[in-house]
Amino acid sequence: MKGLVFFSLLASIFVLGFLQESVHGRPSLMSLPKPRRDDSAAFARWLVSQNSWGVLSTVSSDWGGAPFGNVVSFSDGLPDKGKGIPYFYLTTLDPTASNALKDQRSSLSLSEYNIGTCGNKDPELPTCAKITLVGKLKLIEGTKEAEIARAALFAKHADMKRWPKSHNFQVYKLDIENIFMINWFGGPKPITVEQYLQAKLNKPALTVA
Amino acid sequence: MKGLVFFSLLASIFVLGFLQESVHGRPSLMSLPKPRRDDSAAFARWLVSQNSWGVLSTVSSDWGGAPFGNVVSFSDGLPDKGKGIPYFYLTTLDPTASNALKDQRSSLSLSEYNIGTCGNKDPELPTCAKITLVGKLKLIEGTKEAEIARAALFAKHADMKRWPKSHNFQVYKLDIENIFMINWFGGPKPITVEQYLQAKLNKPALTVA
Repeated sequence: MKGLVFFSLLASIFVLGFLQESVHGRPSLMSLPKPRRDDSAAFARWLVSQNSWGVLSTVSSDWGGAPFGNVVSFSDGLPDKGKGIPYFYLTTLDPTASNALKDQRSSLSLSEYNIGTCGNKDPELPTCAKITLVGKLKLIEGTKEAEIARAALFAKHADMKRWPKSHNFQVYKLDIENIFMINWFGGPKPITVEQYLQAKLNKPALTVA
Repeated sequence: MKGLVFFSLLASIFVLGFLQESVHGRPSLMSLPKPRRDDSAAFARWLVSQNSWGVLSTVSSDWGGAPFGNVVSFSDGLPDKGKGIPYFYLTTLDPTASNALKDQRSSLSLSEYNIGTCGNKDPELPTCAKITLVGKLKLIEGTKEAEIARAALFAKHADMKRWPKSHNFQVYKLDIENIFMINWFGGPKPITVEQYLQAKLNKPALTVA
């Protein structure tokens, strides 16, 4: 009986500890270790690989060329095997896709906050990392890359397989041209697209709080 | 002793239930009840009042007029007393503010996912609500409204009070011109800015899952 009490109390304490963590911050969704913050290209790739949705901005043809952000899901590859290129599954029933078909200029914005590793930090603080990939949003349906993209999307968003055929969802990619990332004090880190695409994530990295 | 065992087991079961919820979905951060989905204007106001950060898009003067989304914190008023107008605390050290000073066209994008009331739903599904407020991002520092805005910002983002003076953070507002909200099947809901600003949130609303 004493053992049962001890176990129950221990379980309560453990679970209450987790509860406090998840109420104050966010439960961590991280599946790959966070790279060192000075390994900028790997850090950027980690931010993209560990997020699964964000805001995709296009030039609004409806609203006088206004920059139009829209909440979308994305995938940069099979889980923890992403290559850094964001793929999307979009319908022209939604303005983002139809904007992109008229003007490809676009950007995808993500926060470390959604990975759950910012704790209580304000998402605007430079110590809670953020990234914006700026480039061209391109329809790639029908290409070989689209098949890789579709597998990447369905692996992270199983629900997409069931989205209505009548809506004509198609695969798009963001062709990255510029990278804006802040993951510490001192302003955005200079990262070239080449450095970003070549960064390796699959070796265990030193975790930095 | 039996009472203690019973209490401990009960606490474990309760907390494990919550834990499961927070791992599968997100712990709810909702402090006001979710309006009925057909009460579009109130629903939009709820999405804005219950979120505290999002992506603010501007026209990039650095990158050829590209739509540039950026993760920022915001506040539409004192907690649960928001008026629906998003205020920001920005520095021109960050491109968003400097973009806005050259071209005020802007939008703010938010997801219900961050409130924690989407459960396991994919954030791109229409049943996980999303909103984009499109308008003009205006520097209002020095006005009477800026003082109200500053109080609204500091109430939701206590940390902002300590942000370095040398960075010259200033208060901006999004002057809303168009509202794009999807909170169910059937495309975006038509909501005028007037309907949005006049919607009431402070009466208990029927909670719809």
